[in-house]
Amino acid sequence: MSNKMWGGRFASGPDAIMEEINASIDFDRHLYRQDIAASKAHADMLAKQGIIAADDAKKIAHGLDTILSEIEGGKFAFKRALEDIHMNVESRLTDMIGAPAGRLHTARSRNDQVATDFKLWVRDTIDTLDAALSLYQIALAERALEHAATVMPGFTHLQTAQPVTFGHHLLAYVEMAGRDRGRFADARKRLNESPLGSGALAGTSFDLDRDMTAAALDFDRPTANSLDAVSDRDFALETLAAASITAMHLSRFAEEIIIWTSPLTGLVKLSDKFTTGSSIMPQKRNPDAAELVRAKTGRIIGALNGLLIVMKGLPLAYAKDMQEDKEGVMDALSALSLAIAAMAGMVGDLVPDMAKMKKAAGEGYATATDLADWLVRTFNIPFREAHHITGRIVAAASAKGVPLHRLTLEEMQAVEPKITGDVFSVLSVDRSVKSRVSYGGTAPKNVKAQAKKWLKKLAKERA
Amino acid sequence: MSNKMWGGRFASGPDAIMEEINASIDFDRHLYRQDIAASKAHADMLAKQGIIAADDAKKIAHGLDTILSEIEGGKFAFKRALEDIHMNVESRLTDMIGAPAGRLHTARSRNDQVATDFKLWVRDTIDTLDAALSLYQIALAERALEHAATVMPGFTHLQTAQPVTFGHHLLAYVEMAGRDRGRFADARKRLNESPLGSGALAGTSFDLDRDMTAAALDFDRPTANSLDAVSDRDFALETLAAASITAMHLSRFAEEIIIWTSPLTGLVKLSDKFTTGSSIMPQKRNPDAAELVRAKTGRIIGALNGLLIVMKGLPLAYAKDMQEDKEGVMDALSALSLAIAAMAGMVGDLVPDMAKMKKAAGEGYATATDLADWLVRTFNIPFREAHHITGRIVAAASAKGVPLHRLTLEEMQAVEPKITGDVFSVLSVDRSVKSRVSYGGTAPKNVKAQAKKWLKKLAKERA
Amino acid sequence: MSNKMWGGRFASGPDAIMEEINASIDFDRHLYRQDIAASKAHADMLAKQGIIAADDAKKIAHGLDTILSEIEGGKFAFKRALEDIHMNVESRLTDMIGAPAGRLHTARSRNDQVATDFKLWVRDTIDTLDAALSLYQIALAERALEHAATVMPGFTHLQTAQPVTFGHHLLAYVEMAGRDRGRFADARKRLNESPLGSGALAGTSFDLDRDMTAAALDFDRPTANSLDAVSDRDFALETLAAASITAMHLSRFAEEIIIWTSPLTGLVKLSDKFTTGSSIMPQKRNPDAAELVRAKTGRIIGALNGLLIVMKGLPLAYAKDMQEDKEGVMDALSALSLAIAAMAGMVGDLVPDMAKMKKAAGEGYATATDLADWLVRTFNIPFREAHHITGRIVAAASAKGVPLHRLTLEEMQAVEPKITGDVFSVLSVDRSVKSRVSYGGTAPKNVKAQAKKWLKKLAKERA
Amino acid sequence: MSNKMWGGRFASGPDAIMEEINASIDFDRHLYRQDIAASKAHADMLAKQGIIAADDAKKIAHGLDTILSEIEGGKFAFKRALEDIHMNVESRLTDMIGAPAGRLHTARSRNDQVATDFKLWVRDTIDTLDAALSLYQIALAERALEHAATVMPGFTHLQTAQPVTFGHHLLAYVEMAGRDRGRFADARKRLNESPLGSGALAGTSFDLDRDMTAAALDFDRPTANSLDAVSDRDFALETLAAASITAMHLSRFAEEIIIWTSPLTGLVKLSDKFTTGSSIMPQKRNPDAAELVRAKTGRIIGALNGLLIVMKGLPLAYAKDMQEDKEGVMDALSALSLAIAAMAGMVGDLVPDMAKMKKAAGEGYATATDLADWLVRTFNIPFREAHHITGRIVAAASAKGVPLHRLTLEEMQAVEPKITGDVFSVLSVDRSVKSRVSYGGTAPKNVKAQAKKWLKKLAKERA
Repeated sequence: MSNKMWGGRFASGPDAIMEEINASIDFDRHLYRQDIAASKAHADMLAKQGIIAADDAKKIAHGLDTILSEIEGGKFAFKRALEDIHMNVESRLTDMIGAPAGRLHTARSRNDQVATDFKLWVRDTIDTLDAALSLYQIALAERALEHAATVMPGFTHLQTAQPVTFGHHLLAYVEMAGRDRGRFADARKRLNESPLGSGALAGTSFDLDRDMTAAALDFDRPTANSLDAVSDRDFALETLAAASITAMHLSRFAEEIIIWTSPLTGLVKLSDKFTTGSSIMPQKRNPDAAELVRAKTGRIIGALNGLLIVMKGLPLAYAKDMQEDKEGVMDALSALSLAIAAMAGMVGDLVPDMAKMKKAAGEGYATATDLADWLVRTFNIPFREAHHITGRIVAAASAKGVPLHRLTLEEMQAVEPKITGDVFSVLSVDRSVKSRVSYGGTAPKNVKAQAKKWLKKLAKERA
Repeated sequence: MSNKMWGGRFASGPDAIMEEINASIDFDRHLYRQDIAASKAHADMLAKQGIIAADDAKKIAHGLDTILSEIEGGKFAFKRALEDIHMNVESRLTDMIGAPAGRLHTARSRNDQVATDFKLWVRDTIDTLDAALSLYQIALAERALEHAATVMPGFTHLQTAQPVTFGHHLLAYVEMAGRDRGRFADARKRLNESPLGSGALAGTSFDLDRDMTAAALDFDRPTANSLDAVSDRDFALETLAAASITAMHLSRFAEEIIIWTSPLTGLVKLSDKFTTGSSIMPQKRNPDAAELVRAKTGRIIGALNGLLIVMKGLPLAYAKDMQEDKEGVMDALSALSLAIAAMAGMVGDLVPDMAKMKKAAGEGYATATDLADWLVRTFNIPFREAHHITGRIVAAASAKGVPLHRLTLEEMQAVEPKITGDVFSVLSVDRSVKSRVSYGGTAPKNVKAQAKKWLKKLAKERA
Repeated sequence: MSNKMWGGRFASGPDAIMEEINASIDFDRHLYRQDIAASKAHADMLAKQGIIAADDAKKIAHGLDTILSEIEGGKFAFKRALEDIHMNVESRLTDMIGAPAGRLHTARSRNDQVATDFKLWVRDTIDTLDAALSLYQIALAERALEHAATVMPGFTHLQTAQPVTFGHHLLAYVEMAGRDRGRFADARKRLNESPLGSGALAGTSFDLDRDMTAAALDFDRPTANSLDAVSDRDFALETLAAASITAMHLSRFAEEIIIWTSPLTGLVKLSDKFTTGSSIMPQKRNPDAAELVRAKTGRIIGALNGLLIVMKGLPLAYAKDMQEDKEGVMDALSALSLAIAAMAGMVGDLVPDMAKMKKAAGEGYATATDLADWLVRTFNIPFREAHHITGRIVAAASAKGVPLHRLTLEEMQAVEPKITGDVFSVLSVDRSVKSRVSYGGTAPKNVKAQAKKWLKKLAKERA
Repeated sequence: MSNKMWGGRFASGPDAIMEEINASIDFDRHLYRQDIAASKAHADMLAKQGIIAADDAKKIAHGLDTILSEIEGGKFAFKRALEDIHMNVESRLTDMIGAPAGRLHTARSRNDQVATDFKLWVRDTIDTLDAALSLYQIALAERALEHAATVMPGFTHLQTAQPVTFGHHLLAYVEMAGRDRGRFADARKRLNESPLGSGALAGTSFDLDRDMTAAALDFDRPTANSLDAVSDRDFALETLAAASITAMHLSRFAEEIIIWTSPLTGLVKLSDKFTTGSSIMPQKRNPDAAELVRAKTGRIIGALNGLLIVMKGLPLAYAKDMQEDKEGVMDALSALSLAIAAMAGMVGDLVPDMAKMKKAAGEGYATATDLADWLVRTFNIPFREAHHITGRIVAAASAKGVPLHRLTLEEMQAVEPKITGDVFSVLSVDRSVKSRVSYGGTAPKNVKAQAKKWLKKLAKERA
């Protein structure tokens, strides 16, 4: 017997370059758990349907369990000549139990088998990522609660815009991670149909119970079209899309950490745990972890893009191009997993310099909007007019080189005579953040409430 | 008053190049309906909350209605110097109703305004795409029902693999479109939170009723964090990701149409409606529509990629980079819309050459699997062994230059003596497709049932 | 006569959706100058070779000149039903000169025609971009000369690393732009082969003089393989790749401008020319131009990616997919052109705060490397050991909360007894930058020399 | 001594997740040869300049040679805790030669070191790729010479357009590979400046001879700006761009092979060397190698895209993000190398079915253009009119269900009375290809000449 499972007809072996380009065992070995689980489910079903003998199914199951132990114990010799995980497992099974091993592949094909295995792997990985994101949210929400009233400059265009609280800023990332988890959950739900039993592409003439294998593997149902089932890699693409958006969120926070920890701004410090030194400049505390998180985004988007390109224009059903799905997905999701963990670690690690933050929040006329709003509220001046008045007052302060609250009442009245001494009450940053009580606003009481709401929800999830 | 809404403090005007790079009115004018709807909702709420006078709100609403008519009637002069849709509308409103117009922008900012407008636009576009995809599914399912028993070659690797039915093949695309619609629906659900009232980034000190504006604009609820609300473009990215996967599906079908209509294969014909001629070769019937559908995928993935790049590493909250969101999204979704329509048109237009399809289905030893399965079923030979026996029989037929059913019984028995004359019953393509009755398989009765199920479901949706 | 040039055989017209997806006139009209020039060159050659009459060629040339005037004068009515620029021009020519117009398309096809037109357009655009980049380099080198001795903090990881000069920093971008121009020049050289005369794909049986048309259009030579000539879009891709790298460079500088102009750092100011205000925060000076430059990178990379996807897996020769080349390229190169101009403008506009820069350069123990190098030079201590000694001295200074030069000699000697008072001479930032005289180093004299060298070279180019 | 080279100041070690995200040794170990060569060049120069003792330099060189042997002999233990290749090598050197090892890092930094190493690696890889492409060109040109007169259908839109020769088609890919090699050569030339001696970012105060190290490493010159030198990854991006375009070319050919070897068309056969079988359908000959080549394009474009994203918006100088450059580049260039080899193998392996090709070339009215051209030439009919006449004749033939040369003269004259019996001489496919003698055209004599020209040029290159 040829060592190639499909080699019956082939006169000469493949070219060396062919073997190199074709073999997938270097990466699809990571599917071993899923492959074995799916084979066990398949064999059980075949026996229940009377397609193979119960005794053979038992031998198969036992053999597969042994192989699982061997792999997990590091005692399994993967062979490149056997190409992929499926053939490596089946070949070892044949060594162990002989003829019955040859019955396992009845009524299935590598096409439905690999689709099943990879779906299961992606599903497992989504669960891992979801758990990691939930820990990241908890870390954020806890720090947000701690810093519900810590004032920092809020930016637009990296220009100081209005004072916000540090807690509020952290909660923005909790929201993003919440949407990210929603996307992964939706992807998980949509992928959860079992391709097993679709055969090579046309279904099979054996009397299968696909509901049984679906249930055994925790799928919601079997797929409804065999051609689609073996041609579909949507689940990988959708997961990569969710991963790309998640990574993009992390990269934004990473960028902020890099800016905040720069000595130019000094708003935040990271400990040695998440920084490195320089080979030549001994004083450096480089935020390498944040930089790497920022950079991983490129790799993850690259993987999404790469797989979309692979799938573009492929005729149905399975084509070997689709073997290019695994490395990109595995690499990208593992990079994302690392990035989430690094980010959660940094959230716990970072120490804001509250004095600097507050000082910076007060610079750049950050309470100008408060002044404009006060004009609207107090004198019923149309906002656009109040906005122009405020602009002129800011210009006056700027010309004098002082912050707004250091202008005299007279100087303000020179711009708008109606202004009274009450105005000073709205010009402090503390007052400013306290006043933003609209739903979703930065007021400490809002932040506290939101942080608690999230922590409660997250604790409940994990209970 | 300066013609720049924000020009209060500015001494000199912007550079010409600045005006050119900065203006967005050329593309954000498409948001006019959403912008006006959101402004009306905002004014109503301001009045209800007593922040502006009821009478002012009425004037604003009336003015905005007039502007809507002007724009839709082609009588509105968009001005580049006014930069964007928001300022164009507000400036015209000021011309029309004077001072009250200046009150409209109370307690909001262009940052929450544009997020609201663009979300509404994306939501509307998702609804349009969903309707188009449902028509495409109906077209596919109807043709599938018509061709439930039309035998064609099923391919893997573009090699003839097993016979399938044309209807089954078409239904594979119904499944894909079903998942596509699911992704759009999930994106729609997730985006459906109102950013209006988030202000520039920090919320506002005015006593807003954000639930009221959310409800007026058919949002499910207001966003929970103002910083996140103005920094978020997930809805655009997620929609582009769904669009990219949808386009990828269309490109696969387009590729098939291009191959099937090539004179090399001649499996399918398209009418003049979806083909073009050549300027130099008068006989050509080029499947231009299918080629353009295939190509649009590149553009759509390019847009997804482009926006992910734009968003990568942006600190909170709003940055002007985010203005680059609209053109790519608008262009990509409009390309997708065109592609779906073209594809639905081709589905209705294409005429399979059933005789050629059937003949091609029988070539390439496409029923070899049926033979292998028959050996398993009849003699309880392990599949792997049956597979090798079949391989040797195919090799014999191939050497003789005949299809499987043209081998004599003796020639088959030379490979496997157990074989009986019954074997010939499984070697026809009709018999082959009929036998694939496993759930999701290609058997005509399965296809008919699935097509009817889809048509019923789709009809119900549209009822 | 049908209004479709290729409609001879077609019984029914195209579907409405077909017309919409197929027409390219909305964007390929921008090729009018190239299309007319190529047609004139083609007609001249046909006449010289005796393929058409000299008189006809004269009429054609005259007619084409008139059409050029009409288009440039805004008097030409482009028609969508005529699909593309080629047919719009030819149709108008027929209206003007009758039968001879029908001879123009002898021995060519739209396939070689559009390849020629688009190559010419890309070539022209490369020339424009090259000129813009040279102006950008001049702006940079002039500011670099002005600030050859202006000390600023040099960063790695956005952490203060070593003092550098502002001029040195600006010259880094001159180098990048130099490489960018090199890439565009190489792309231009490689594209400069004429596809004209390749026909639809196979060449032609007419006795053409392709060298003549190539020369007339300033191509270096005709293409050597007709199939390749009409299938090739390398020139567009290579130009987009060069554009993407250029944009990436601009985005890095844009990011720096955004960080430097943030009130958090205040290292640099931009005037009103390149900043905008806020609709709600009157004090803002948003660096919108820099943000838009940063963002355009996404769009440009998206276009490169999109066209690579379009071309992937296309069989030879021309396919309609290739019509998707123009919009992306035109949009991306126009975005790049705008970005270069904006950047050159900002380079001229920005005002560094030299005092702040110098102060920041001295923070964060930026001269630690100078100390380590001094230890190596003075005591012949191995660098690794000197590096560790320096690390401990920095730790001591950091613990005391002072910069390096505020430690006492005794405090330094506590770490390394050999240290003498001479050490203080290397701890100032001015001394530090002056000492970096290695080729390519930041020493003011280096910077001055390099800036002058560039300015001389750039002036010579433009002479 | 801490096992961290930069750990002098650090109180606590890095977090476990930090170590995992930060370590690069798993991939930058591939730079060992370049790292050692660069270190040797650096040490030599330091000694020559009197910065370190000659004896120390000798020990360093000897030690580095030993380390090279150890690595190449598989006896070197890479340690993750030492992070990267530089520290692994230096640490081992310290073990071997003690103190002098600590002098090696004088006047350099990991920033210029890694830029140098990676440039050298990319340069070496470009050389390998160039050699592989030249072998691929030779394989193509040899088959082209063999098949200079083999007629096949030429396609546009995958519709039969005009007959071409198989040799002509193969030569199109020689042209593409020629441009690809040109791009790699340009990238190589542009990268060939030595960053070594740029230090961390600012240059150094040691009296280096950077020309000496540049020459020792075969660089053309040292880089002119130290900030740019350590921030630059253009060489990686430009190489990836060249690789992406090359891969795109290969993917086009791969697609053709997949279509040609499909039983639907049967134009070409591949041997067992480059095909695989199916686990369930014993008759399959799947063109896996071609499919994998087609798919690798996605991965390579993904890598280009990923690195452009990483670099976008990075402030100068080095940031840790840039560590993400290596894996993508290494993976993509190795995939490309494999793809070129597989493609060259298939070019040698493929066997065209010349009879089928010729038959297919004659179908679909492929000589219609010849008829139109004959009308122009013979009767001086304007091309557009000849084109319409031909269209009507094709319609007549199509209605009758015959090829053009099976229409009677009378039937042709019914469309155009001028037509004479001579017309039949231009309607055969052999005559058609022979007539296309314009430069670059498909005539066998052209193809022979071009193939020989290429073979001569390629042989000369390799001499």
